Amino acid sequence: MAILDQFNPQEWVIDTNGKTALSIRIKGEPLFQETSPYQTVEVFDTYDRGKMLTIDRMVMCTEADEANYHEMIVHVPMFTHPNIKDVLVIGAGDGGTIRELMRHPGIERVTMVEIDEVVVRASQQFLPNISSALNHPKLNLLIDDGIKFVENAASDSYDLVIIDSSDPVGPSEGLFSQSFYEHVYRCLRPGGVVTIQSESPLFHPDAFVDLNQCLKQVFGKDLVHCYLVYIPMYPTGMWSLTYCSKQGPHPLHDFDREKAIAFTQQHDLSYYNPDIHQAAFALPTYIQAKIQSSK
Amino acid sequence: MAILDQFNPQEWVIDTNGKTALSIRIKGEPLFQETSPYQTVEVFDTYDRGKMLTIDRMVMCTEADEANYHEMIVHVPMFTHPNIKDVLVIGAGDGGTIRELMRHPGIERVTMVEIDEVVVRASQQFLPNISSALNHPKLNLLIDDGIKFVENAASDSYDLVIIDSSDPVGPSEGLFSQSFYEHVYRCLRPGGVVTIQSESPLFHPDAFVDLNQCLKQVFGKDLVHCYLVYIPMYPTGMWSLTYCSKQGPHPLHDFDREKAIAFTQQHDLSYYNPDIHQAAFALPTYIQAKIQSSK
Repeated sequence: MAILDQFNPQEWVIDTNGKTALSIRIKGEPLFQETSPYQTVEVFDTYDRGKMLTIDRMVMCTEADEANYHEMIVHVPMFTHPNIKDVLVIGAGDGGTIRELMRHPGIERVTMVEIDEVVVRASQQFLPNISSALNHPKLNLLIDDGIKFVENAASDSYDLVIIDSSDPVGPSEGLFSQSFYEHVYRCLRPGGVVTIQSESPLFHPDAFVDLNQCLKQVFGKDLVHCYLVYIPMYPTGMWSLTYCSKQGPHPLHDFDREKAIAFTQQHDLSYYNPDIHQAAFALPTYIQAKIQSSK
Repeated sequence: MAILDQFNPQEWVIDTNGKTALSIRIKGEPLFQETSPYQTVEVFDTYDRGKMLTIDRMVMCTEADEANYHEMIVHVPMFTHPNIKDVLVIGAGDGGTIRELMRHPGIERVTMVEIDEVVVRASQQFLPNISSALNHPKLNLLIDDGIKFVENAASDSYDLVIIDSSDPVGPSEGLFSQSFYEHVYRCLRPGGVVTIQSESPLFHPDAFVDLNQCLKQVFGKDLVHCYLVYIPMYPTGMWSLTYCSKQGPHPLHDFDREKAIAFTQQHDLSYYNPDIHQAAFALPTYIQAKIQSSK
């Protein structure tokens, strides 16, 4: 039957929670396929979203959409906190977050801790537009367990921490726990900020609500701010990021709009602009209700 | 194979453009199925999005998401234009747009022109929460061709026109043409406004750009304003609506925020709130670029 042929697993990658599914058509065999001690990492070519990185066949990013996520997880804190010099990034193996960070000359050092070197290698080989800054001289790239890294990291060391994780299964599961965020909080300098991949409110509603509750416990409920980004190739298209601070700047009241305007005029960004920065924090009423009930 | 079984057409409705596909799991046989002279109309029960209306197996709305669309197509113009009394609605057979309009006591008359009575009947029978106002005494519901209706309608008659159409195939195709919008423009009172279902910038990029260009020809390029709404059960999750006026109010500069705050406190809305009204008009840079190049 036509519909069954259409979903031949040699032709489509299917990301599903059993109730809804997003399928992306691929051009035949993977360009890259390797099973690490943690997961199976693959790169495919797609019909209209460029090359695509998957982990255990879940979509991590496509060339056509990756900027939405990477620009929003980086530039929102960069135009809110006035003086970010030391950055810690957990995860982010594809390199897109590093590429966006390195557009900011004020950053002095970035430490990136990715557990799986296979993700880095696949991206360097097949996603050069995403991984382009992984050799940057300001970057200290460690292949290591991010959870252990923050447990052992010095207190008050970072102005910005970015948690750029995959979904809370497999090696990323511990990145959704309260003890992890207590260490992240401790590592931040006073006034420091964190941005976090915080799942889809609709595709992973339990993980979204649980993480929000956990962050409010650690940072204090008025210092946790959810924001939304359209990611068309993630199921439901609505993804959340979360901004928290250690008694630091508010993402809207302290937003340096003039600086953001100058930056977006200099750089050829795809998604982020000053209006989107502000708009992303406006939540639909039913999403507000989901996280207000978790206070 | 498990993946093929998963997409058995008795278990899933699949909305696809051949390159990406959104699949929604259904609980067996349709609750309603009838082929009209125009299209096949079905209602299904889903696993986590409530009941769902499809036309030719394309998703029209689910109970869980329909408010996103219906609240945004109605309340955005209602809190921008100060004095809407006469409304014309084209399409909207499921009734959700009418339900939202009837929350506004200042509206005196609504004329709705839906081409397919089967859509109305299916919704009245199986989607009572959506179709609840289709018997409202202020509503004049006509089963007729919306294109012919506006050709014959008196000039300067409506304060608000809403084009709540399905995709530009089958009977809705003519709702995406310049001659149709020239008649819509003529039917509007001076200062009147229109909101339009204007497709997904990513799933239907050509229809999105062509319609934007057409509307700029008819209304003038500074009077056409695209805005976005998350609709998780439409493929890509990013859908556009467009606000135009006949030399009328600007959707942000003339937004009556105080009135919108009071209204949202009185009504149990799901998606719309005053912050979302403003945020929806902030477009990602790559969406701006798509429509700026079409000026």
